[in-house]
Amino acid sequence: MVDAVRWVRTPENRHEVHVLDQRLLPLRTEFVVCSDHLEMASSIRDMVVRGAPAIGIAAAFGVALGSQSFRPDAGISYPVYMEGVSRILGETRPTAVNLFWALNRMKPLWVSSPAGSPAPTDLLFHEAQHIKDEDVRLNQAMGAHGQLLLPDTCTVLTHCNAGALATGGFGTALGVIRAAIGAGKVIRVFADETRPYLQGARLTAYELLEDGIPTTLITDGMGASLMAKKKIDAVIVGADRVTANGDVANKIGTYGLAVLARAHGIPFYVAAPFSTIDFSLSSGEQIPIEERSPNEITHIGPGVRIAPEGVSVYNPAFDVTPAAFITAIMTEKGVFKPSEIRSMAP
Amino acid sequence: MVDAVRWVRTPENRHEVHVLDQRLLPLRTEFVVCSDHLEMASSIRDMVVRGAPAIGIAAAFGVALGSQSFRPDAGISYPVYMEGVSRILGETRPTAVNLFWALNRMKPLWVSSPAGSPAPTDLLFHEAQHIKDEDVRLNQAMGAHGQLLLPDTCTVLTHCNAGALATGGFGTALGVIRAAIGAGKVIRVFADETRPYLQGARLTAYELLEDGIPTTLITDGMGASLMAKKKIDAVIVGADRVTANGDVANKIGTYGLAVLARAHGIPFYVAAPFSTIDFSLSSGEQIPIEERSPNEITHIGPGVRIAPEGVSVYNPAFDVTPAAFITAIMTEKGVFKPSEIRSMAP
Repeated sequence: MVDAVRWVRTPENRHEVHVLDQRLLPLRTEFVVCSDHLEMASSIRDMVVRGAPAIGIAAAFGVALGSQSFRPDAGISYPVYMEGVSRILGETRPTAVNLFWALNRMKPLWVSSPAGSPAPTDLLFHEAQHIKDEDVRLNQAMGAHGQLLLPDTCTVLTHCNAGALATGGFGTALGVIRAAIGAGKVIRVFADETRPYLQGARLTAYELLEDGIPTTLITDGMGASLMAKKKIDAVIVGADRVTANGDVANKIGTYGLAVLARAHGIPFYVAAPFSTIDFSLSSGEQIPIEERSPNEITHIGPGVRIAPEGVSVYNPAFDVTPAAFITAIMTEKGVFKPSEIRSMAP
Repeated sequence: MVDAVRWVRTPENRHEVHVLDQRLLPLRTEFVVCSDHLEMASSIRDMVVRGAPAIGIAAAFGVALGSQSFRPDAGISYPVYMEGVSRILGETRPTAVNLFWALNRMKPLWVSSPAGSPAPTDLLFHEAQHIKDEDVRLNQAMGAHGQLLLPDTCTVLTHCNAGALATGGFGTALGVIRAAIGAGKVIRVFADETRPYLQGARLTAYELLEDGIPTTLITDGMGASLMAKKKIDAVIVGADRVTANGDVANKIGTYGLAVLARAHGIPFYVAAPFSTIDFSLSSGEQIPIEERSPNEITHIGPGVRIAPEGVSVYNPAFDVTPAAFITAIMTEKGVFKPSEIRSMAP
């Protein structure tokens, strides 16, 4: 299976993190080599790596890379320096809460490092790798729980990419599909292309095709018509942040699919690990929604302009689906109604 | 205003029809010169010209160009030859009924031509031009009726391009917007890009920008989120075919917007001339829906691949919106509830 974020040791015993450049998929398979936290911050911000769980993993490795770059003779203490590393990584993308979750999880390992002792860089790399390995196991558990809700023969519509490429591996929404197939169910997938960034066309179609899962690509406007023709049995998407009341921020276009699924009597499922749940926010209105460059809409790929010069553009990367439109949230701890999320707070 | 289909006489006194190549807009303004009906048939099929009323006008000129190409010494009678011309033009695109309406309207002029007399080519060109001029007047009347339904300050979401480029001029959905502005109303427009062919990004944004109408471009998945934020006061779209019960075939994605508008309590209007109404069909289920090449989804523009090789694609060009989701149909004869359409049959 594809590996979005890979920890590598060089012959000189330096750590590097190789980030699969998802901007180039499916046409080219290239990796961006990150040697420090600044390169990792750029990779997150520029969407070399994307997907809430994968962003968390990348940020964790970013913390470790930052530690490797610490120079004791630079006149700044290790904890103060690492605070800066965390802040730089935390400012890359505002919506996916896994980013902040991962930074918080890494913090105890560097904050308690005794003054004068060597930076705990190896420890940080092992913790980042542990987060990644754990994410795969969580996704497998999520898939095992979630697939129980799918009928034996089922056509699923998915949006954006909530697959191996968006996670440590296996995927959230696509993990549920993989688990259902593993359980012997016959699953067909409609993947919508997910403009503007085309994660559906470029990543989901690619990753499902690689696994031999029957997949049909459509544009974002075609889902409703398929629902009306009773061609869709379930919608499954991932999430960038879930609030305590069960509201879900996810890729722009998700909310419309949820309303359409409701109007057609089709179950709408969100697959997300607990690291995506932000118990500190009471509702989705409080989630910061990232607005990205107009160029993502006026151009396709680098330099192919499709819209007239001078047109205004609105480009929010996410929308919020109220809990009322969500049939169930599939997690590694089981399947919950959105209203049950609050009671699961740690 | 832009002119999609233009009748030209050469210095040698031959007729040509210059068709604005809408595939190249907004980056380049070039015309495809059509000298016979085969060139016009290609221009319609390959979407050099698109939009139901403009397709009708192009087909009418195609009939006239066919007549010009008639050779009395070719061993085939004029009416039999012209029957073939009409058939070739009629097979270019199946969904827009204006195509068949225009071919039927031209037919009496050639079918009754006495044997041995010169082909009535000039008459046919004048009739095609008459259809075009009439379409502009119809659109202005439609706009005058339709704009009465818009509040004095109003933000309209439109889909695809139902503007000057899709008609003889002025436009249907965009004609209503132009008429409202002409009546002193303050109208803002959200244009969704309308994948796969990007008529919204390439054509609607272009033509509204040319007219100085405030326009913001979004992707197809963003409309629902804007509706939830109460940023949309009305949705106005064109139509490719309206059936006697008020069902509407229009660009893929229209149906989803209609369901979303209903869910958010937003009026959903269809602007279409009577030539778009097919009284011979009792409901939208009977409308043939064109499926187009997978390349429109797997590629953007010529040769820019975005999806993996080998992926399956579903690419219907239109969907059907049931009458129940349509607030009103704006025509040149006034504004009707969908249920009133049947009683207007000629």
